[in-house]
Amino acid sequence: MNIIDLIEKKKQKQSLNQEEIEYFVNGYLNGEIEDYQISALLMAIYFVGMDIDETTYLTKAMVDSGEILDLSSLGDYVIDKHSSGGVGDKITMMFMPIVASLGDFKVAKLSGRGLGHTGGTIDKFESIPGFNVNLTDDKFLNQLRKINIALSSQTKTLAPADGKIYALRDVTATVNIIPLIASSIVSKKIASGANYIVLDVKFGVGAFIQSKKDATILAKTMVEIGKRLNKKIIACITDMNMPLGHAIGNSLELIEAIEFLKGNMPNDLKEITYSLISTIILKTGKFKTQTDVINAIDESIKSGKVLDIFKTMINAQNGDCNVLSNYSLFGTTKNQYIIKSNQNGFIRNIDALKIAKACKFLGAGRVRKDDKIDLNVGIYLNKHYGDKVNKNEPIATIYYNNEKNFLEALQNVNEAFEYSSKMPPTRTLLYKIIE
Amino acid sequence: MNIIDLIEKKKQKQSLNQEEIEYFVNGYLNGEIEDYQISALLMAIYFVGMDIDETTYLTKAMVDSGEILDLSSLGDYVIDKHSSGGVGDKITMMFMPIVASLGDFKVAKLSGRGLGHTGGTIDKFESIPGFNVNLTDDKFLNQLRKINIALSSQTKTLAPADGKIYALRDVTATVNIIPLIASSIVSKKIASGANYIVLDVKFGVGAFIQSKKDATILAKTMVEIGKRLNKKIIACITDMNMPLGHAIGNSLELIEAIEFLKGNMPNDLKEITYSLISTIILKTGKFKTQTDVINAIDESIKSGKVLDIFKTMINAQNGDCNVLSNYSLFGTTKNQYIIKSNQNGFIRNIDALKIAKACKFLGAGRVRKDDKIDLNVGIYLNKHYGDKVNKNEPIATIYYNNEKNFLEALQNVNEAFEYSSKMPPTRTLLYKIIE
Repeated sequence: MNIIDLIEKKKQKQSLNQEEIEYFVNGYLNGEIEDYQISALLMAIYFVGMDIDETTYLTKAMVDSGEILDLSSLGDYVIDKHSSGGVGDKITMMFMPIVASLGDFKVAKLSGRGLGHTGGTIDKFESIPGFNVNLTDDKFLNQLRKINIALSSQTKTLAPADGKIYALRDVTATVNIIPLIASSIVSKKIASGANYIVLDVKFGVGAFIQSKKDATILAKTMVEIGKRLNKKIIACITDMNMPLGHAIGNSLELIEAIEFLKGNMPNDLKEITYSLISTIILKTGKFKTQTDVINAIDESIKSGKVLDIFKTMINAQNGDCNVLSNYSLFGTTKNQYIIKSNQNGFIRNIDALKIAKACKFLGAGRVRKDDKIDLNVGIYLNKHYGDKVNKNEPIATIYYNNEKNFLEALQNVNEAFEYSSKMPPTRTLLYKIIE
Repeated sequence: MNIIDLIEKKKQKQSLNQEEIEYFVNGYLNGEIEDYQISALLMAIYFVGMDIDETTYLTKAMVDSGEILDLSSLGDYVIDKHSSGGVGDKITMMFMPIVASLGDFKVAKLSGRGLGHTGGTIDKFESIPGFNVNLTDDKFLNQLRKINIALSSQTKTLAPADGKIYALRDVTATVNIIPLIASSIVSKKIASGANYIVLDVKFGVGAFIQSKKDATILAKTMVEIGKRLNKKIIACITDMNMPLGHAIGNSLELIEAIEFLKGNMPNDLKEITYSLISTIILKTGKFKTQTDVINAIDESIKSGKVLDIFKTMINAQNGDCNVLSNYSLFGTTKNQYIIKSNQNGFIRNIDALKIAKACKFLGAGRVRKDDKIDLNVGIYLNKHYGDKVNKNEPIATIYYNNEKNFLEALQNVNEAFEYSSKMPPTRTLLYKIIE
């Protein structure tokens, strides 16, 4: 087999077979095939596409390129969750302790750091003083066995071919290719070892993928790969046109998540969190109806059980539990700037992309892999969709440490808000469930 | 400017402007832009195309990336020729001395070695014992000044960006992209300094490009680039479905070329040689009609003037002129195998691609840049298109040194021949002239 022939074959709009896909994945990982050949192949895939067989082979080859975490000793209900990424998306932080509180479920979450307007889940948890995100496999398993919940940074031994291909896509304008996105996400989830996986596939201006249509194709592709590789994968397609909740930033989002676990739930966060949880929990067959799940969640939160589990996890991973009651332990920024409304009316839109850009300007996320994140900066939306505002009322607060780029951030936040004179209609964020 | 944005722009089917094209060409040459980014861009160009503006900018940027040979001191009629490559294509060897014999013309030919079923013009001339193909610029110019004719191996200082991009195309399945082929050919020709350039653009099974349509697009593109960059470029589109002449190989072709210069002209070689010469000579305005040119060529050959010039060139470049009368000086192969016809009839086709494959098996050409060529191996077609053959009459002779792969070569030659019971119609090889 010869990589040039494979590139030519894909160029000529033909499908690659399993052997061919394994050949290029393994050849690339072991250095026999060059970066410049894979990037040409990826670009051909952008134009020609990959069918579901090819996408499944690619996923499988990437899973098989490294270690597969063996969680089989933990029983039949090991649950994982993935989000395609959004603005203010702190759902994992609520999802984990709630699911772990519902009975026989274990929530095993391996997470990357990633690039974006804020850090990933791992970075957000690192806002907690002392919190250890680098668990060994043994420690990860033991903690799951003991307290049903664990979070750790993804090691490079899982799906290493995906890691290498992803890094190449990032510098060759080949990121936004649905079969490659699907196989990248699913390969990491499968290698992470859970048997129930719920995917939050987001669409809208604040998402990786803008259209409902493309998000649906991506979701269907990932669910189908799951079926073919014997994993129970469900996808919820959700709206990412406006930030989720009020807080966007790292420690700011963690605080909002803690408040949620205490029962203070903004509608949008509640809808998505409850939807994702009930979708995957019903799939396990341990609950009969959605109402049962919702009642169980409500009860768990009300009783303080969820917050207890969250506390136990922080403890187990050497974090300072006092943050749960004393938010000043997170530290804060040198400066806060309150933006006031310049009119009376109702908030009819908050552009998630502009808020994301503002956060990037503040230094809340990484542009390059080795960038340092400022965990305290961010934006708090004092008003959200549908809220009535009076002129000069605070609509948002910018938390910042550095004057540099502050004005750009401010401008983006200002531009993000749109008003109407009438109360806008209620939003529904869950668009579709694919299973 | 940012290469990732440029790749994305091309991916999104937009045209790149001159500044953007210069940016990626120069950035790649100086190492600021990586192989894997250029290969992704090239693949996007395969799918999206490049318009004539972009193709011209690319050509110009590649010309400007290196030295431009200054032949202006040689007068107004410095002529160069290029062939897109074919099987048995020894036209340059006849073209050069004939044009140099016609009056005030200088034939300045820089040639690459290239990959293919046989070597290039440079390799073929190297069949002549002692012949020096590595002239310095000074020696090249002086020889042109003195005897109007010179051939030298292309140095890496001409259009080096083209060299680097071509090497990358070769290993990323991005060779057959018309705007890239056009800019590659024309950039090298322009950097080589002639002011009249005739291009032999071949189509058919033995050519780089199969269809007349694509060959026409390529020819039109190159001629248009010439207009925009103030070079007189004409293209002849010619048929490359069957080998040109009887000899395919390196020294074998040189011998056939010498015979041609002595007046022994197979029809196909004569048609193409005369067409290319009259096309470019008429463009100079030094002759009035095609008939004038043809008569002048006939006269030059008949009088021995052409052969004299050829001899003078071989002398000037330290080659052994005795080869012109004693072909045994070229040496020959250890073995010759004569293939005999298995039927009575007329030759109605000789598949050029199969003959090319056979030559590759014999070792007449390079697969990789550092492969060594066997200058004596090759195939002689005892019969050609339209010839009547009787069963058991010789149709082809294989010259070979190595038993290895001989059977594969034999099989390909056998398969190349097709017969009919009636005399097939006369062929015309010149399809179109683009100017």
